Amino acid sequence: MLDWIDSYDERAWQTTTDGTVRYALLGLGWWTIDVALPAIESSDLGEVTTFVSSSTEKAQRLADENDVDNGISYDEFHDGAASDQYDAVYVGTPNAYHLEYVETAAELDKAVICEKPMESTVERAERLVEACEDANVPLMVAYRMHTDPAVQRAKELIEDGFLGEPVSVHGNNSQPLLEMIPDPGQWRLDPDLSGYGTSVMDLGIYSINTARHLLDRDPVAVQSQMSSHHEAFADVPDERSAAILVLEDDVKMVTTDSQHAQGDTELKITGTKGQIKFQPAFHGEVTLHLSRGDVTVTVDHDTFDAEREMMEEFDYFADRVLTGTPVHADGRHGLTDMRVIEAIHRSAESGDVVEL
Amino acid sequence: MLDWIDSYDERAWQTTTDGTVRYALLGLGWWTIDVALPAIESSDLGEVTTFVSSSTEKAQRLADENDVDNGISYDEFHDGAASDQYDAVYVGTPNAYHLEYVETAAELDKAVICEKPMESTVERAERLVEACEDANVPLMVAYRMHTDPAVQRAKELIEDGFLGEPVSVHGNNSQPLLEMIPDPGQWRLDPDLSGYGTSVMDLGIYSINTARHLLDRDPVAVQSQMSSHHEAFADVPDERSAAILVLEDDVKMVTTDSQHAQGDTELKITGTKGQIKFQPAFHGEVTLHLSRGDVTVTVDHDTFDAEREMMEEFDYFADRVLTGTPVHADGRHGLTDMRVIEAIHRSAESGDVVEL
Repeated sequence: MLDWIDSYDERAWQTTTDGTVRYALLGLGWWTIDVALPAIESSDLGEVTTFVSSSTEKAQRLADENDVDNGISYDEFHDGAASDQYDAVYVGTPNAYHLEYVETAAELDKAVICEKPMESTVERAERLVEACEDANVPLMVAYRMHTDPAVQRAKELIEDGFLGEPVSVHGNNSQPLLEMIPDPGQWRLDPDLSGYGTSVMDLGIYSINTARHLLDRDPVAVQSQMSSHHEAFADVPDERSAAILVLEDDVKMVTTDSQHAQGDTELKITGTKGQIKFQPAFHGEVTLHLSRGDVTVTVDHDTFDAEREMMEEFDYFADRVLTGTPVHADGRHGLTDMRVIEAIHRSAESGDVVEL
Repeated sequence: MLDWIDSYDERAWQTTTDGTVRYALLGLGWWTIDVALPAIESSDLGEVTTFVSSSTEKAQRLADENDVDNGISYDEFHDGAASDQYDAVYVGTPNAYHLEYVETAAELDKAVICEKPMESTVERAERLVEACEDANVPLMVAYRMHTDPAVQRAKELIEDGFLGEPVSVHGNNSQPLLEMIPDPGQWRLDPDLSGYGTSVMDLGIYSINTARHLLDRDPVAVQSQMSSHHEAFADVPDERSAAILVLEDDVKMVTTDSQHAQGDTELKITGTKGQIKFQPAFHGEVTLHLSRGDVTVTVDHDTFDAEREMMEEFDYFADRVLTGTPVHADGRHGLTDMRVIEAIHRSAESGDVVEL
């Protein structure tokens, strides 16, 4: 137990401490500037050399403010400007813009770390994955839960048989989006930019992907119910969403997601012999609750936040890029989530079970 | 806040402290003997005068051991033996026996408190309700969550607008039944005695009914998935169950239930403005978690257990019987749960949404 606690946040994945990956950051919203940028700057293996934004002026102004060498426009990026100054791109734009920037990055032979969900539709995500495969550049989808210490320890415990046979999963991810970003015209509420909807694409993906990752089981059938009520959600179907996902080996997963609700994150996996619960689960404040028989253990790990989660993720990505070894989660792993999300939307529309 | 804490377990429902309801107890399993009997004995308004069991000998032996006046067989009960010695019956037998005992109790003009689920099928539950209505005897279904202080305070908060608009509900109720009762032939695994199945009938009913009670909204559509794996569950379809229940006003409820899993109970209601969570939720150890904005309040109430919960329920029932006022939950309220459970089973079989 002493060893387990002391090694809780060790990086089991780390294979090198040498080298630097230089990044261009695309999509300079609050997440990229306030979280991704400081995460890379405090990482061991990364540095930010280039900002890419809608205009040269905006990119250069933000580059100056944040002590970054280059600020270029998206047009200049497509033309290969400053491409000798970075080795990899981080794509943090609205979902529907990922494809065009990743296609250019692949042409420029850059490694890609792309925010989730990978794109706005399955078809565009498939093109994104193929662009990277054709150019033979590494593509990682930015599921930062995978390198969170709580998730890593939970995955080890599950592999050691902690749960017995997994039986059920509960996931909830809700937040008051309009209080966080008081703009009813924001891109997450615009299906042309966000994709199939907003709550499952942006929030549900955390429960779905983390459960897949922890249990090493994918959904084989989904059912769902969605509805929108508030006027700001008029163009998206899923202000409120609920789904059943049957995972391989008949594990019964249920999820709810809402962009218009009190903030709450939880992921709970119950097995025949034990239970592993993350509460809170996402957004950089993971607390791990372990129960087996009548013993319950709660593990708090206060030093982690969203920036630290991103730092782990960027160092993992850089480790793999620098050593030329495969990344996980790769594009094919991310495509499964896109197909599951599309199936959840299709099931809500038809009322039918959708098999995957 | 001081007043709120000090009055936390007050009985807002109480209208009398005078009088005694004398009970006959039917179905002398561990729950009746170890929980219901001491609950009535320590209640203000109840006493147990009569035990009813499979044989006169068994009933009399248990009556003697527990200091109860009369021990009679089911046959003697049907013949009206000792019926001047009790005013009400508590029916704690396997589900499929409820109807015949309630029919006799109604003929004998006795008040009835009947364990949940009310019977094994909707059709038999309807006959049970009609028997009591035709005889004009009070019928209460024993949802002991209704008189739990945490549930009462949560219901008051919800009525005061704590949640804003309710958005989603998560319910889980799981237990390792074969570890608790190591008999694969037990009645909860026998559909002739339990009804449609085991996990939803015996465990899911807690999430479903408590959500209905708290939100004052009933399910209008359900979807579900069930499967059985362990050989002891060969005759019931729902060793593992997951369901989506759409409640009135488009509240999205998801539930999982399993009689073959690590023990866990949770009920979580998330609204646009707040969240109310019971964790643990059922079986006499309720802790109430309240969140609104970024404030979270946890209310522990250590003196409650299953026996104390039953005592509250019996005193509530006796209060209503002694004053001749209507009981809640009455038979019609309980019938809704039976119809929901039947619909969940039907949906699992067909794969279709079942409207209610």
